[in-house]
Amino acid sequence: MSADIIDGKAFAEGLRARIAEAVPTFVSAKGRKPGLAVVLVGEDPASQVYVRSKGKATVAAGMESFEHKLPDTTTQEELIALVERLNADECVDGILVQLPLPKGVDDKAVIAAIDPAKDVDGFHIANAGKLAVGEEALVPCTPLGCLMLLKDRLGDLSGLDAVVVGRSNIVGKPMAQLLLQENCTVTVAHSRTRDLPGAVRRADIVVAAVGRPEMIRGDWLKPGATVIDVGINRIPAKEAGKTRLVGDVEFASARDVAGAITPVPGGVGPMTIAVLLRNTLVAAHARAGLPPPAGL
Amino acid sequence: MSADIIDGKAFAEGLRARIAEAVPTFVSAKGRKPGLAVVLVGEDPASQVYVRSKGKATVAAGMESFEHKLPDTTTQEELIALVERLNADECVDGILVQLPLPKGVDDKAVIAAIDPAKDVDGFHIANAGKLAVGEEALVPCTPLGCLMLLKDRLGDLSGLDAVVVGRSNIVGKPMAQLLLQENCTVTVAHSRTRDLPGAVRRADIVVAAVGRPEMIRGDWLKPGATVIDVGINRIPAKEAGKTRLVGDVEFASARDVAGAITPVPGGVGPMTIAVLLRNTLVAAHARAGLPPPAGL
Ligand SMILES: NC(=O)c1ccc[n+]([C@@H]2O[C@H](COP(=O)([O-])OP(=O)(O)OC[C@H]3O[C@@H](n4cnc5c(N)ncnc54)[C@H](OP(=O)(O)O)[C@@H]3O)[C@@H](O)[C@H]2O)c1
Ligand SMILES: NC(=O)c1ccc[n+]([C@@H]2O[C@H](COP(=O)([O-])OP(=O)(O)OC[C@H]3O[C@@H](n4cnc5c(N)ncnc54)[C@H](OP(=O)(O)O)[C@@H]3O)[C@@H](O)[C@H]2O)c1
Repeated sequence: MSADIIDGKAFAEGLRARIAEAVPTFVSAKGRKPGLAVVLVGEDPASQVYVRSKGKATVAAGMESFEHKLPDTTTQEELIALVERLNADECVDGILVQLPLPKGVDDKAVIAAIDPAKDVDGFHIANAGKLAVGEEALVPCTPLGCLMLLKDRLGDLSGLDAVVVGRSNIVGKPMAQLLLQENCTVTVAHSRTRDLPGAVRRADIVVAAVGRPEMIRGDWLKPGATVIDVGINRIPAKEAGKTRLVGDVEFASARDVAGAITPVPGGVGPMTIAVLLRNTLVAAHARAGLPPPAGL
Repeated sequence: MSADIIDGKAFAEGLRARIAEAVPTFVSAKGRKPGLAVVLVGEDPASQVYVRSKGKATVAAGMESFEHKLPDTTTQEELIALVERLNADECVDGILVQLPLPKGVDDKAVIAAIDPAKDVDGFHIANAGKLAVGEEALVPCTPLGCLMLLKDRLGDLSGLDAVVVGRSNIVGKPMAQLLLQENCTVTVAHSRTRDLPGAVRRADIVVAAVGRPEMIRGDWLKPGATVIDVGINRIPAKEAGKTRLVGDVEFASARDVAGAITPVPGGVGPMTIAVLLRNTLVAAHARAGLPPPAGL
C-alpha cells in the first residue's frame, strides 16, 4: 500500500485564492484593505526570508502589508511602543512580531503588548486561554493549518485517536486543543514519553512536531493512519556540501503504512502563511463588527 | 491486593494548617489580613452551603472573608459593577463568583470582569492562557488539589502515562495541562472516546471527572494505577428514601486493582476549599510584591 500524499501546497493555494476572493467584499464594506503589520528586529537571515514571503503573500491576496524593520539594538521599550502604535492604528488588523527577538528583549512582554484582537499569530495568552476554554480565538497558524488538512482529508474527526508528538506553545499544545475540540481522544507525547512507538501505533491521526529528522518510522504507525509531519529539518544530502529538507517522519517507510501523509517540503509548510492571511482577514472582520468571512 | 486509600481529608487539613501558619507573616508584612470576597447571587441551596463553608474556612485560616449576597433579580451590569468594586478594593486579594449564575446573566462576561490577579478560581481566560503556555497562573482549585495528592503519593510524575476522563474547563482540561507540565504523557478522554476501558487500562494515573456514578470499573484499571476520583454523584441508598455519595469510579472493584485511590467522600472533595485558601494567600503575596509563601 502506498499512502495518499496530502498536498499542502495545493490546499494552501486554494485557501489563498478563497481569501483573495473574499477581500473585495471587506474593501467595499469598509473602504480600506485589511492590513497586516509585520515587525522584524535585527538581521536574522531566515527571519528576513519569512518576513519577505509574508509581505508578498499579503499583497498578493489584495491586503495591505506594513513592514517595520528595526535594528537589533532596538530596546524592549521601543519595540513595545511600536506595538502600541500598531494597536492604535485603525488600518492595522493583524500584528506579527517575527521571532526570535534579539537577546535582552523579552518575547513574552512584547507579545503581551499586542492587542489580542490583532494577534494573528495566536500567541497572546488571551488567545491561548480562549482556545483552552473553547471560546472563539485567533489560533496559531501552523496547527490550524494542520487541522484544515486533517478535516479536508478525513471529514469528521470525532472519536478518532490522535497523538501529538511535541508540546511547544506554537505547535504541539494548540494542536492538541484543536483536536480535542474536534472530539478526538488526544494524547500528547514529548521527550519524556516512555513508549513513543506504542503511543504512535494506537493513533488514527499522528501529528509530528518534534524537530528531529525522520524520527518517527513507518513501523511505528497504525496501518491507514493519517500523518501530518510538521517538522522541517535540514540535513546533509548525498551530494557533498549540499543539504535537503526532511520532516520528523521517515517518509519512505511511513508511506508504505500510512493511509495519507504530508510530504516535506510541500505539506504543512505552505499552510502557515496561508493561515496567517486567513487570520488577518478574520481579525479584520471581527474588528469591523462584520460576520466572519465564509469558507475560510 | 487492596489499594492504599489516599486521604484527601487529612491532606487538606494539613494544607489548611500550613496556610494558617503562613498567614501571620503576611499580616505582619502588610498590616492587614489576606481577604477573599465570595459573591453569591440567588438562593440556590447547594451554592449557599458552599459559600458558607468557604467563608468559615477562610476565617479559620486567619484570613478575611467578605460575603456579598445578591438577589436573583440582580442584573449582569450590577454584578459586574460589584466585581469592579472588588477589583479596586485593596483589602480583597481573591474574588470568587459562585456558579451557577441566574438565567440572563452571562457567566463568561462576569468572569472576564474579574482582575486576573484576584481570580482565585482560575477561570479567567488570562489564567487559562497562562496555564496553557506554562506561565505562572492561578489554577482552578479542584485539579490543582488532585495534582497535590498525586505528587504527595508518587513524587516525580515524569514519564508516567496519565488519562484524564472528562474535559470540562474547570476540571478535565486544566488537569491535563497540569499533568503535561509534570511531564506525564497525557491522554484526554470524553464522551466521544471509542475505547475508554482501553485508554484507562494503559494509564499509571487515572483522573476521573465525568459525573457518572461508578462508571469506571476495577477491571478497566492497570494493576497498581493511582486513581483520583473527582466525581461526586448522589445516588439512592439501600434504605428507602435515603441517598449516598459515590464517585465516578466503582470503588469496591477498583480498590482490588489500583495501587492507591481516593475515596468519595473524603478524597478530592475536601481539597477544593483548601486550595481556594492557598490560591487566595498566593494571590495576596503576588499582589503585595512578596515572594510566594513556601510549602504551599
Ligand atoms: N510552518 C511550519 O511548517 C512550521 C512551523 C513551526 C515549526 N515547524 C517545525 O516543527 C518542528 C517542531 O517545532 P516546535 O517549534 O514545536 O519545536 P520545539 O519548541 O523545539 O518543541 C519540540 C517538541 O518536541 C519534543 N521532543 C524533542 N525530542 C523528542 C523526542 N526524542 N521524542 C519525543 N518528543 C521529543 C519536545 O519535548 P519536551 O517538551 O519534553 O522538550 C518538544 O515538546 C520543528 O522541526 C520546526 O522547524 C514547522
Ligand atoms: N470539589 C470537587 O470535588 C469537585 C469539583 C468539581 C466537579 N466535581 C465533580 O466532578 C465531576 C465532573 O465535573 P465537571 O464539572 O468536570 O463535569 P462536566 O462539565 O459535566 O464534564 C463532564 C465530562 O465528562 C465527559 N463524559 C460524560 N459522559 C461520559 C462518558 N460516558 N464517557 C466518558 N466521558 C464522559 C464529558 O464529555 P463531553 O465533553 O464529550 O460531553 C465531559 O467532558 C462531577 O461529578 C462533579 O460533581 C467535584
